[in-house]
Amino acid sequence: MNMEIKPIYPVEPWTITETSFDRKYNYRNETTFSLSNGYIGTRGTFEEAYDFDIDTGLEGNFVNGFYESEQIRYGEANFGSPLFSQSLLNLPNMKETRVLLEDEWFTMEEGTIEDYSRTLHMKDGVLKRSLVWTSPRGRKAEIRFQRLVSFEMKNIMAIRVQVTPLNFSGKIQFRSRLQADVENHTRKTNPIVDYGPFGRRLEPLRLEGEGYRLYYEGITKNSRLTAACGCSHRVSGSECETGWEFCIGELEGTAVLTAEAKEGSAVVLEKMLCYSTDLDLPAEDLRGFILDTLKEAEQKTFGGLEKSQKAYMGRFWNTADIRIQGKDSQALQQGLRFNLFHILQSAGRDGRTGMGAKGLSGEGYEGHYFWDTEMYVLPVFVYTEPETARRLLDYRYGTLEQARERARILGHEKGALFPWRTINGEEASTYYPLGTAQYHINADIAYALSLYLQVTGDVDYLKEKGAEILIETARVWADVGSFAECKGGRYCICSVTGPDEYNVLVDNNFYTNLMARENLRDAKGAVEYLARHDREVLARLKEKLDFSEEEWKLWQRIIDHMYFPYDEARQVYPLDDGFMMRRPWDESRIPEEKRAWLYENYHPLFIMRHRMSKQADAILGMYLHSHLFTKEEIRRNYDFYQEVTLHHSSLSTCIFGIVASDIGYDDEAYRYFSQSARMDLDDYHHNFYAGIHGANMAGTWQAVVNGFAGLRCQETRLKFSPSLPSEWESYSFKLRYKRALLRIGVSRGQAEFTLEEGEKITFYIGGKEICIQENGGRHVEKI
Amino acid sequence: MNMEIKPIYPVEPWTITETSFDRKYNYRNETTFSLSNGYIGTRGTFEEAYDFDIDTGLEGNFVNGFYESEQIRYGEANFGSPLFSQSLLNLPNMKETRVLLEDEWFTMEEGTIEDYSRTLHMKDGVLKRSLVWTSPRGRKAEIRFQRLVSFEMKNIMAIRVQVTPLNFSGKIQFRSRLQADVENHTRKTNPIVDYGPFGRRLEPLRLEGEGYRLYYEGITKNSRLTAACGCSHRVSGSECETGWEFCIGELEGTAVLTAEAKEGSAVVLEKMLCYSTDLDLPAEDLRGFILDTLKEAEQKTFGGLEKSQKAYMGRFWNTADIRIQGKDSQALQQGLRFNLFHILQSAGRDGRTGMGAKGLSGEGYEGHYFWDTEMYVLPVFVYTEPETARRLLDYRYGTLEQARERARILGHEKGALFPWRTINGEEASTYYPLGTAQYHINADIAYALSLYLQVTGDVDYLKEKGAEILIETARVWADVGSFAECKGGRYCICSVTGPDEYNVLVDNNFYTNLMARENLRDAKGAVEYLARHDREVLARLKEKLDFSEEEWKLWQRIIDHMYFPYDEARQVYPLDDGFMMRRPWDESRIPEEKRAWLYENYHPLFIMRHRMSKQADAILGMYLHSHLFTKEEIRRNYDFYQEVTLHHSSLSTCIFGIVASDIGYDDEAYRYFSQSARMDLDDYHHNFYAGIHGANMAGTWQAVVNGFAGLRCQETRLKFSPSLPSEWESYSFKLRYKRALLRIGVSRGQAEFTLEEGEKITFYIGGKEICIQENGGRHVEKI
Repeated sequence: MNMEIKPIYPVEPWTITETSFDRKYNYRNETTFSLSNGYIGTRGTFEEAYDFDIDTGLEGNFVNGFYESEQIRYGEANFGSPLFSQSLLNLPNMKETRVLLEDEWFTMEEGTIEDYSRTLHMKDGVLKRSLVWTSPRGRKAEIRFQRLVSFEMKNIMAIRVQVTPLNFSGKIQFRSRLQADVENHTRKTNPIVDYGPFGRRLEPLRLEGEGYRLYYEGITKNSRLTAACGCSHRVSGSECETGWEFCIGELEGTAVLTAEAKEGSAVVLEKMLCYSTDLDLPAEDLRGFILDTLKEAEQKTFGGLEKSQKAYMGRFWNTADIRIQGKDSQALQQGLRFNLFHILQSAGRDGRTGMGAKGLSGEGYEGHYFWDTEMYVLPVFVYTEPETARRLLDYRYGTLEQARERARILGHEKGALFPWRTINGEEASTYYPLGTAQYHINADIAYALSLYLQVTGDVDYLKEKGAEILIETARVWADVGSFAECKGGRYCICSVTGPDEYNVLVDNNFYTNLMARENLRDAKGAVEYLARHDREVLARLKEKLDFSEEEWKLWQRIIDHMYFPYDEARQVYPLDDGFMMRRPWDESRIPEEKRAWLYENYHPLFIMRHRMSKQADAILGMYLHSHLFTKEEIRRNYDFYQEVTLHHSSLSTCIFGIVASDIGYDDEAYRYFSQSARMDLDDYHHNFYAGIHGANMAGTWQAVVNGFAGLRCQETRLKFSPSLPSEWESYSFKLRYKRALLRIGVSRGQAEFTLEEGEKITFYIGGKEICIQENGGRHVEKI
Repeated sequence: MNMEIKPIYPVEPWTITETSFDRKYNYRNETTFSLSNGYIGTRGTFEEAYDFDIDTGLEGNFVNGFYESEQIRYGEANFGSPLFSQSLLNLPNMKETRVLLEDEWFTMEEGTIEDYSRTLHMKDGVLKRSLVWTSPRGRKAEIRFQRLVSFEMKNIMAIRVQVTPLNFSGKIQFRSRLQADVENHTRKTNPIVDYGPFGRRLEPLRLEGEGYRLYYEGITKNSRLTAACGCSHRVSGSECETGWEFCIGELEGTAVLTAEAKEGSAVVLEKMLCYSTDLDLPAEDLRGFILDTLKEAEQKTFGGLEKSQKAYMGRFWNTADIRIQGKDSQALQQGLRFNLFHILQSAGRDGRTGMGAKGLSGEGYEGHYFWDTEMYVLPVFVYTEPETARRLLDYRYGTLEQARERARILGHEKGALFPWRTINGEEASTYYPLGTAQYHINADIAYALSLYLQVTGDVDYLKEKGAEILIETARVWADVGSFAECKGGRYCICSVTGPDEYNVLVDNNFYTNLMARENLRDAKGAVEYLARHDREVLARLKEKLDFSEEEWKLWQRIIDHMYFPYDEARQVYPLDDGFMMRRPWDESRIPEEKRAWLYENYHPLFIMRHRMSKQADAILGMYLHSHLFTKEEIRRNYDFYQEVTLHHSSLSTCIFGIVASDIGYDDEAYRYFSQSARMDLDDYHHNFYAGIHGANMAGTWQAVVNGFAGLRCQETRLKFSPSLPSEWESYSFKLRYKRALLRIGVSRGQAEFTLEEGEKITFYIGGKEICIQENGGRHVEKI
């Protein structure tokens, strides 16, 4: 980890703990303690609903895929610029649960607080807060809050509030509010966005209180999507004078219950919160669904949901956890788990939703899905929770039609071009040089899909959806470039932007050309596989896609003749054709406070005419396809890019770390890894308030597994090249590969491979084939 | 001319005549008959003010440099994107003069019309309309309108209305209206502009009627500029019952006068219209100025202004006119004069204003000034009316401070970067790939300035302003690129857009690199000249600009090492480094109706990844600096670009014609010239309604003088290479060069040079020095 930065929270193996409440850190902590199940996301705000302003807090509740659209205005609009935005919409809040002790409202800003802690239990998937509060008039009570967003029931969030009067007996009142007068804080969370959403975007359709439940339904002003939510309440541990009373307005509903509490005896409120939208079921069925689901959750009780949550998390950690022993290991261990926990939370699991760059933890990047999912997050799931990887791919498959339409807009008569950023599958990037020009998104999706297919061996998926994605993405590559005479007939791709957003609209971006070629190769491989094994599927695809052998031949020609920029003097692959000509970067001309995201303070032309790189670009390609390069080649390129890369993206250091491992730069690898592992937990970028950096979080898992352990799955081979950072005594992790679960433990001098599930596994270490033939079997390799 | 297109108006040598009134062609004709003096511009609308809608007409009155600003919104704004627009604002109309015969309003849409004509007298600078009208009730009258925008008095437009009752005696009423409820028709005239101006933008400050005058003053809502205008009336030829009566509202004022007319006897109204703004004098002085100026104009009378107008035009035509004899010559002759007439009208002459791409003839391009002025128009004035050329350069000098600020925004610590499009000197381009990235604007201004200095020998101008412009523009070139190792240490300029707007953000645009080098050379030349001839001026500049010898040395290094893209196989200069790699253009994929401005129907990425060119780019550079290339080289490049250029800009064909002349492709030269000469007069682009294409208009003069006659002024030599198109018998034109006026007549087999003013002139034909030693002297050269 970055040794100059002191950990924000105590270093603990499985928990993140806040030990005092401080308004100053609230906004950041709301992200730290955000909970999600890939469908509902809720920020770590407080039940007693403090009055934070736009700079200090954001009450946020989101449903994956639910967005509002605003008209986008341009100085001059280009043909094909998106006309309507998609912004993950902040939905009504139902967490608010205020507690009245006799005539005093519980608030942490009055009275005195003892034994305060708020703890994220990553092992259990539960957030807990507890404290002993003495009111200004001297009433003392122990108050505990628990909260979870259920992995078992995707529409359910559950809250448990327990109040124990310690020095009095008397009335305790719960006021539970459904607050629908909510809005996105766009000016703060997406400051460069001009189009909103601003103000409340949900028009209320109904708000009801009945029995012990509240129910709300509203429709967005522009996207015309319906959101519904409801909550139910149950109090135990006390006699209640009356039942729940309701106060219902147009935009908020409050349910009030007063209980008689006895000194030393706990009163408990269990609250179930349910969200759904008409993206999942017809609007007219929403009310019935919400009420039924609430009933189901009530029956399970908070305790029941907590139990299933713990079980789910247990299964996840059993595969995904990385264990480290050694110096700094506890802090890094905590960082890794925090990262994995948020990744797990963020990924859409219903096949209809993807994963936002910031998960469902905040409004940053408008909640959009980017390549981050495929290149950073998806590989982690491929090896740890392949079902989730598949559902994320399903989302892309489900938007293939929009991608086809987009390809037509870009002038391609065939194929599909996936959007650079989106929620609903349509392009939402309003600035094409840093958006649509990043054609590599197509190859990134194809790469992740191919990795999934290789690692899982899921041939059915290839037939059902995979081959179609591979073919449609490949077709765009076959149309976007041309065989250039001036480059000896090699295939050149002009006017694209690679991953590096400081070098835009370039010719022959190395990463793009490489990934495009592999996309074509994978597509061709898929077609050949079907030709050999399932002619029926191939025939269906040929007809559906109007796809011919001519295209297939063209692909091979492109694969054979792809052009790559090359600097003869340095023997490296420059970022693109123009890179070596650009003006050398002089960091001394940049004031220190401006050495972050340059676009904030510099004109794009200033940025793009300089020879420097924002983030891993060519280097990323050389990691993903490391089998195509010699170590010496990778080393030369790494040395070169090491000099010119500014790492002004959170997606960069983890990749540099992996490549450093690959070439034996162990110290640098460790340094990069350390810079990545606690990036969000210690808020290196000072913008964690806006949401997690999901790509980097996943990248840290890769930095250990693909970096230190050297995992690759290339050309259908599972390969390792284990090393141990000198700071550590050992580390271990597990992988799913086809039907196997493999445990890898690396310690000083050796790497141990154990087949924990499955009957057999074959893999390679340094070119040597290793085969474990029985369940429980083990292989030890000297390193 | 384009033989497939029938002339719209009768072919006449000095006039453009409309022989019938037709709503269908009104909008276009408003531009044809627009009048201007470089300060006031007024569209060719009718005094009786018909009710045209947004698609059929635009009442337009403009004052050069007077603009309204609107906030510009961007999907995502970049650092340095202009936040406020500048749009030439449509000002109050005072031309409206309705005529009442007893109880019948004169309108061309009722009754019957005989002997109708509306004629633009280009020799006199006057627009005349006459007709005999029989009212629905049988009253017959001859009605004549005359209109001019005075070159003598820049604030004055004058109108004369003459009504002669032919079959009755009775009341004739004039209703003259000042209409201030005016707005730009942005949706129609600048359809891609999102930000307006929409609606009325002038807030009225006062509107008065007194005596025989109307006066108005208003302030713009955002730019806070004050416009003032007034008109005065005088009737003669009849007894008037009463004086002028006024009806004054907030936004319009009407002056009404009723006269008793006798059959056969003319009643004449003379109306003087005056405009000024607080860009010229303090707002509080405007009223006094307008009223004084009106008085002065009244004293001159319409006849007096007409006389001075004719004299001014006579002087202009005496130098600028090109006379052609031969086949097609009459139509081409008319086209050339129409073009020169509009150029003359459009150029700002007060040193504070430039020339809009559409002059003051319409709202197109928001009234912005582009490079069109310097590269197309200014050379014409340099040789024909150098005083006007100087005033246009003064405008650029006057905005040097804004250009310096802009250079800082673009990251240059020294120097000035002129805006791609502007009115007030600040960048108004909202899309930098087709705007600010066109850095060549700097070199274009430097080129025009250098040409002015060479042709006029105006050394004082070099000392006062010229050297400063040259140094400040050159400094940006010395900072934008770098000596690239990978190109053998040559100086490369990355990420700019050349003139060609289909190849954007490219590396080493040939035109840009060439023009940049010559900009540096001229700047260095200026510094050296001052070092030899005026050390005091140099010292002043060094101090003012913090300018050192180090810079000067760097310039020389760049001049010596400028890089140019070169295709070895074809031995041509590609448009830029990436050009030869782009996908070959397949016109057959483009439906015929979309083969115009591609951006309307295609995504920028589709356009920029194809190997084709919108307009003259490298070819323009090779014309301007033809002395640096062999004929064979120019020919190879011309052949190459001839194949790939789409001419989707009105700035293209005239340049190709000039270069075709240069290399002896006489038939092609003639064809290109013919496609340019009547482009606007016959409305080839179907958008003449939005205003003139000033660059092409000026380009046609160049096509004859620089094309057929082969004029160049390079390395301080005036050079000719005369040829005669086979379709012609002869042509002649005149040039000013230093103190001389030279007449050039080219006929079959010979070119005759006559020194009409001045004592001596030296020039070159095909490398041979020719010297005419006395006024009236003559040289005849066989060709």
